[in-house]
Amino acid sequence: MSLRPERVASFAQLAMLLELSSTPKPGNVDRCHDFPDIKFSHFLASSALCYPVFCRAARGESGLGSLILEAVTSWRQFGLPGNTHFGEVTLLVPLVRAAGMSEDLRSAVAQALRASNVQDSLDFYQAFAMAGARVSEVEELSLSDSRAADEIRQKGLRLLDLMRRSEGHDQIAREWAHGYRRCFDLAEALEKNVASHGLNEGVVLTFLEALADEPDGLITSKHGPGLARQVQEMARSALKSSDCFEAAEEMDRTMLERDINPGSTADLLAAALFISLWRGLRF
Amino acid sequence: MSLRPERVASFAQLAMLLELSSTPKPGNVDRCHDFPDIKFSHFLASSALCYPVFCRAARGESGLGSLILEAVTSWRQFGLPGNTHFGEVTLLVPLVRAAGMSEDLRSAVAQALRASNVQDSLDFYQAFAMAGARVSEVEELSLSDSRAADEIRQKGLRLLDLMRRSEGHDQIAREWAHGYRRCFDLAEALEKNVASHGLNEGVVLTFLEALADEPDGLITSKHGPGLARQVQEMARSALKSSDCFEAAEEMDRTMLERDINPGSTADLLAAALFISLWRGLRF
Repeated sequence: MSLRPERVASFAQLAMLLELSSTPKPGNVDRCHDFPDIKFSHFLASSALCYPVFCRAARGESGLGSLILEAVTSWRQFGLPGNTHFGEVTLLVPLVRAAGMSEDLRSAVAQALRASNVQDSLDFYQAFAMAGARVSEVEELSLSDSRAADEIRQKGLRLLDLMRRSEGHDQIAREWAHGYRRCFDLAEALEKNVASHGLNEGVVLTFLEALADEPDGLITSKHGPGLARQVQEMARSALKSSDCFEAAEEMDRTMLERDINPGSTADLLAAALFISLWRGLRF
Repeated sequence: MSLRPERVASFAQLAMLLELSSTPKPGNVDRCHDFPDIKFSHFLASSALCYPVFCRAARGESGLGSLILEAVTSWRQFGLPGNTHFGEVTLLVPLVRAAGMSEDLRSAVAQALRASNVQDSLDFYQAFAMAGARVSEVEELSLSDSRAADEIRQKGLRLLDLMRRSEGHDQIAREWAHGYRRCFDLAEALEKNVASHGLNEGVVLTFLEALADEPDGLITSKHGPGLARQVQEMARSALKSSDCFEAAEEMDRTMLERDINPGSTADLLAAALFISLWRGLRF
């Protein structure tokens, strides 16, 4: 039975809320702590404002780029500080569109991405500039380059094409470029972990596994690849320790002190949570 | 400028999430603790599932009773345990309807309540039975009485009439019966407290003031009026102490140990939060 668009949108929003709340998620805002500038309540507001965007995405209305822009615009209109959920929304919008289209989520998301167009690229650029998001500054066609719009138009670059250009250094772009392969893998791991450990611990464990598996993209872009690999090693050690949740708490303290925030991994986890909820994960 | 129905619905949902998360809210689930049977994550899911109901309410679609029934049905379909938000949804649905109708929220909510009909009463009864909610067992026309439906039809009782019958012992019913007088007062107090103390502390302070002002309805119905008055005294003492947030934490521990849960006061606070967000409260 296909889910109603409204239910699909509720699941996307719940995925954001569960990612936000699970604790300890080393280095990220969670149920137990805030950042100095962006607080738990700002992430709650950011999620609540996303619902209409998800609803339209699931109904097949508007382009992917315009939906992402709509989310960022609503955050700015409300007056939220900084970047709350740009990566998550960029990952979730195509998944939600796909879940509204078909029972076969993998094929449908690939189809939704292929259908992206030049206008999606232009809207996404505008959303990026407005979101205050951060990416690695290595691209020929940089997201912060104002001439980018001209090049997009001249070369007829779809949003999927842009993501393919960035897949080497951006984890969100890589998911777009490869049909959400890693998110689907994480969803499988998540479902196993939640079955064995319950929801909160299952989410935390999957977060640690994801961090141990691959250096976090946001840490790489803010602090360089060396520190991102160090954090990967910390996650591996935590997973090997006798009480990995206690180890995660210790790791959390260290990372918060040093302002190290594995935000891209959290984005992937939110997408995995959505896939799992859509497939029937309950708690 | 009138808000779009989608934005009104986001504010209702955010009101639920902020009420849930603010801490320490003595005796209630909050950002820092769960109940043994109903967890923070269940309340998050319950809120996420309410959005479509709020959206329809703001658009003027469906009756108030049928909207409340739709919320409870979505919780049961998802498999949520126990009663998560029955009181809050019963309070919020008419307010959201009103916010979608007019700039004058007080008049519009009174008008929305007057427009309730017999079908709303029947739907509300069904929702109540399905929600597992608790009310004082003192009524001639008890909410748990199966003959009630016949009487509603015979006497042509609108949902507003039912609420008027219960206003003597139920705080939610009293709000319906008196045009949300107390919720509007609490919203004013909340706005002042948030301006002085920030969002979280402002919400906690308003919660304590509400509890000090009037015995909680859920405590009365579960434990009797004596204990409800004791809790009222505890809140008064906390407000008088040199550090009322520390006193609130102490009060929280005591109440959780004894399973005393001022749930009706939390419901009123969520309605006040919605009124304030709608009027422009930001944080």
